[in-house]
Amino acid sequence: MFTDFGLQGPYMGQMEAVLTGLAPSVRVVHLMSDAPHFNAKASAYLLAALTAPFPADTVFLCVVDPGVGTARRGLILRADGRWFVGPDNGLLAIVARHASEVEWHEILWRPQKLSASFHGRDLFAPVAAMLATGQMPDAAPCKPAIGREWADDLAEVIYVDHYGNLFTGLRAIGLPDGAGIGLGGRRLVQGLTFADAEPGELLWYPNAHGLVEIAANQGDAAALLGVGVGSALTVTRME
Amino acid sequence: MFTDFGLQGPYMGQMEAVLTGLAPSVRVVHLMSDAPHFNAKASAYLLAALTAPFPADTVFLCVVDPGVGTARRGLILRADGRWFVGPDNGLLAIVARHASEVEWHEILWRPQKLSASFHGRDLFAPVAAMLATGQMPDAAPCKPAIGREWADDLAEVIYVDHYGNLFTGLRAIGLPDGAGIGLGGRRLVQGLTFADAEPGELLWYPNAHGLVEIAANQGDAAALLGVGVGSALTVTRME
Amino acid sequence: MFTDFGLQGPYMGQMEAVLTGLAPSVRVVHLMSDAPHFNAKASAYLLAALTAPFPADTVFLCVVDPGVGTARRGLILRADGRWFVGPDNGLLAIVARHASEVEWHEILWRPQKLSASFHGRDLFAPVAAMLATGQMPDAAPCKPAIGREWADDLAEVIYVDHYGNLFTGLRAIGLPDGAGIGLGGRRLVQGLTFADAEPGELLWYPNAHGLVEIAANQGDAAALLGVGVGSALTVTRME
Repeated sequence: MFTDFGLQGPYMGQMEAVLTGLAPSVRVVHLMSDAPHFNAKASAYLLAALTAPFPADTVFLCVVDPGVGTARRGLILRADGRWFVGPDNGLLAIVARHASEVEWHEILWRPQKLSASFHGRDLFAPVAAMLATGQMPDAAPCKPAIGREWADDLAEVIYVDHYGNLFTGLRAIGLPDGAGIGLGGRRLVQGLTFADAEPGELLWYPNAHGLVEIAANQGDAAALLGVGVGSALTVTRME
Repeated sequence: MFTDFGLQGPYMGQMEAVLTGLAPSVRVVHLMSDAPHFNAKASAYLLAALTAPFPADTVFLCVVDPGVGTARRGLILRADGRWFVGPDNGLLAIVARHASEVEWHEILWRPQKLSASFHGRDLFAPVAAMLATGQMPDAAPCKPAIGREWADDLAEVIYVDHYGNLFTGLRAIGLPDGAGIGLGGRRLVQGLTFADAEPGELLWYPNAHGLVEIAANQGDAAALLGVGVGSALTVTRME
Repeated sequence: MFTDFGLQGPYMGQMEAVLTGLAPSVRVVHLMSDAPHFNAKASAYLLAALTAPFPADTVFLCVVDPGVGTARRGLILRADGRWFVGPDNGLLAIVARHASEVEWHEILWRPQKLSASFHGRDLFAPVAAMLATGQMPDAAPCKPAIGREWADDLAEVIYVDHYGNLFTGLRAIGLPDGAGIGLGGRRLVQGLTFADAEPGELLWYPNAHGLVEIAANQGDAAALLGVGVGSALTVTRME
């Protein structure tokens, strides 16, 4: 499960209850519950990074869905053997972009009772449970409406964790060695990990998810730089 | 599990550890961990709404228990085939009120070691594990002490989610079509979902849990109205 | 799992995904996700208290690890039949101190890919999964570098829960009956539970984890006393 619902409230519990009821032998992992709120684009880059290491046949139930209750479609994406279920708002676009083999379906299956505001529970969770138990719900091949022109990488902050560390939409593997990152009026040099900086000092490093991350050793980089999700980065080569 | 413990701290983990140890093949879902704190009455209306869709034989472990350590009893409720375990403080009263077939038992079973402050872990979790594995703990038929005179619906805010959306204790199905809701000096009209309002505008709609919910599209209704759990509502018919 | 990662972000989900992938039939419980941040010593006393009731062969994956990315070793501790996996920074020291039979191993096993900043996911989680499925990873007997001289009990606040209740590093069983606790310029008397005090009044009591806890009935003890993790206590006998 990858959502922007937060862990508070009844939202995650109700989705997990649906999955557990329909697929009792399937293990459910809350991969992330605080994806960038109502921000399908930033979430799309995060989702691609976090799900890259998972094996074929894993099913990802993905809900960042400001358009719930409108006419936007529901999608099933098969990308290099893994399944993704979510709204047609770009959320699944970067997973597809980074994959070699991609197949899109529009979800035609409908539950007996579909609430106007909680498709995560009523539509996407049952579809994910079907896929996880080897059933293909009623669906038709399609092209996604949004995100097909988005770039492979995004030179922006896409997530701020509770330490104030800044995840970017740049994959570290694509950056020239010794590159500098410009953000919030500052130019940051590379370390291997945040332990490479003096306490309070800022740096960037390839994080454990393969993304360029900006952090302050034992400090709050977001506060120090005055930036947040959506702040633009620049990349410069070391002279 | 339905509690007011919050997800922080060792509380949920210790309860889940007990369930897992005693009933290893039973799936545990954290239905809600931030029920209205120490507020058994508001929690009772929320519990009834959230658990309504679940099938027979589901076991709900319910702990909102400001009286832990006092002499209040522990209860088992069987309501339309589902099991509820919790303190005798009204928490289970509305589930019973909305059910057709109801049976109450006082928990007589006691653990070898009962802490004074954590009956959720020491008493209610083992009882829930027994019920989930088909055993009936030592118990005696009883009548609950609190909540039998509470109404079917409660015209108050019973929960504020982390978006600032306001859950009420009114079931949407009981409201006349086109009714208005008065709250915080404002009169709110009905939408199908929060997407029916302009950004920042307030409205009410039947939420995904069957309750009247008050929200601001992309805004924080609780802050805009200056209200919280316990704030009273009025219902008016559309002219 | 016992960590200081918090529930936000992708950290817990990624560790659980590794455990689930490698040990699909093993149940995972999030015992605590908000251990004192980057504070291995306070966390060590908390870990010992919270894990004391668990049976032999339980595997505890323990990550409070400010030194990740440096040369500190990874450890496996077998203590009275239970397994603990974590960094060599004192985190496991008090569990060992309270145990009768203790065996330490340094983890020699390495994953194919070890990130610099997330050994919890890449090193400790796979080792925990191996132990939970009955395999011993490559390891060598050793002595831990840190914490062997730490005392059995710690007269400090080691955790503040979200109610403002203060856990101390003192086991309640070791305190003379009727002892007083000095903290924040106040002297607190003993109750059986927080319900023994008037609303707002402060007291100490043996908590459900076997520790001395300081609380205010329906109040926030941390705010009332102006103290936090690391604040020192004094213990006085009742005259």
